[in-house]
Amino acid sequence: MVDVDGVDRVVDLAPYGVVSVEAALGDPAARAAADRAVAAANDGDPLLAGLALEAPVRPGKLVCLGYNYRGHVPDGVDPTTDDPEFPDVFVKTPNTLGGPHDPVVVPAASLDVDYEGEIAVVIGRRASNVPLEDALGCVGGYTILNDVSDRAWQRRQSQWAMGKCFDGFAPLGPWVTTPDEVGDPQDLLVEVVRDGVVTVSQSTATTIFSVAYVVHHVSRVMTLEPGDVISTGTPQKLPEAAEAHRPLAPGDAVTVRIERLGMLTTRFIAPEPAAHASKGLA
Amino acid sequence: MVDVDGVDRVVDLAPYGVVSVEAALGDPAARAAADRAVAAANDGDPLLAGLALEAPVRPGKLVCLGYNYRGHVPDGVDPTTDDPEFPDVFVKTPNTLGGPHDPVVVPAASLDVDYEGEIAVVIGRRASNVPLEDALGCVGGYTILNDVSDRAWQRRQSQWAMGKCFDGFAPLGPWVTTPDEVGDPQDLLVEVVRDGVVTVSQSTATTIFSVAYVVHHVSRVMTLEPGDVISTGTPQKLPEAAEAHRPLAPGDAVTVRIERLGMLTTRFIAPEPAAHASKGLA
Repeated sequence: MVDVDGVDRVVDLAPYGVVSVEAALGDPAARAAADRAVAAANDGDPLLAGLALEAPVRPGKLVCLGYNYRGHVPDGVDPTTDDPEFPDVFVKTPNTLGGPHDPVVVPAASLDVDYEGEIAVVIGRRASNVPLEDALGCVGGYTILNDVSDRAWQRRQSQWAMGKCFDGFAPLGPWVTTPDEVGDPQDLLVEVVRDGVVTVSQSTATTIFSVAYVVHHVSRVMTLEPGDVISTGTPQKLPEAAEAHRPLAPGDAVTVRIERLGMLTTRFIAPEPAAHASKGLA
Repeated sequence: MVDVDGVDRVVDLAPYGVVSVEAALGDPAARAAADRAVAAANDGDPLLAGLALEAPVRPGKLVCLGYNYRGHVPDGVDPTTDDPEFPDVFVKTPNTLGGPHDPVVVPAASLDVDYEGEIAVVIGRRASNVPLEDALGCVGGYTILNDVSDRAWQRRQSQWAMGKCFDGFAPLGPWVTTPDEVGDPQDLLVEVVRDGVVTVSQSTATTIFSVAYVVHHVSRVMTLEPGDVISTGTPQKLPEAAEAHRPLAPGDAVTVRIERLGMLTTRFIAPEPAAHASKGLA
């Protein structure tokens, strides 16, 4: 994306030999090609506003964290007292991936659909057993994930997969912002807006596990590949929003906005009638 | 695979227009082509014993169940008394997939590696919200999974992903057996042999959730695609084997054998020295 005379436009990197975002993120030659493309941008390039964007990467692995932000604590209380020793990690399956303009179907079988606004770390180069001090060097960029979850399905058993893995429950985007444009990933305000009301507003300064730690930690178990995504968990809802919890329904929209990463607005819609007809199945 | 004069040989389906196992499993035309290929098999076809097999499918989703077999109960006790209402579902990431001849590296960071011998259901045709009575029709075949797990990593947090998703922790195979050759999937003996000792021996008649129910249930959440795998959980270890639990170490081998599906033998080996050097990282 490039600003041409105050208008956001998009440059095509294919003529510059860049074939995929996943391969480009960790590749200095691709970065140089992108810089050349941006320098050559002009008002003949397509308008960003006119494009229907797909998910900016197709992650081979979409790994997520639970409970990674500290809640508010009273004055004088050490906020780290109840910190867990290890991050709680779960997986979303590939059928969950959605683009930034894709609506989310409220599934026929769903019971209590909720949102989670999160910073998603996009891996830029292969990482296995990466030391903590080298971990940020494996990050290719950052984007936004709405970790859509069905709370009732999530709580039916010990593992959360059935609440997390409905088709389309991972809208991602709108784009990947590279680390040089993000700066310190532990100094970003994460906000969620539902029905015009801010329901989440908390800085990544209050995460329990930093981006660097999470990349290091996960890479001890699984080899991370370019394009893989680790989503870093959602902040708590503000108390009044938590009290006013209402499952997402067709017609609702949720916006996640994160400093320097943009905004991800997701509309929720009803299933097609054919799918709806099977709702009554045991 | 075909028996030619008492010797297992393998026929190549590519000349018959079958390009992938995933696409072939639910396709009657592919099945007919396979039948023609088998009819034409001869002693010029490659010996099965001489081939290094890859995983028989590359699942887009590898979904697993926990706690799906009833333990032994005393006489007079209703074995269904403590059955959970819903299966406990989790996900293994693509980096876990291994072929039937691949050794599993005991990772540098691992603490307590264990085995789980399981029947893996391979999806043959797309399934979304499939009714219970149609669910077995979506199954393309069955194979064997060793759901290798690090118990210490698994128990460090509420979600099991970090114990389940080490590289190579899902050896799969040796092949996919089609439903017509399997018969009733709820009447198969699952056994595990470690160091020459049978440590697991239990029939799929004692599962809490049948293959049909599991396919139906999972398809209510995620659209299942050909080649996707749902592994149906492991039986309890026999009491003496559970008492003698010892983490798997380099040099160990585990065989999972399941009636009509074959045997999956996995060797456990040490990591390369370079990876081992990073074991001390915090």
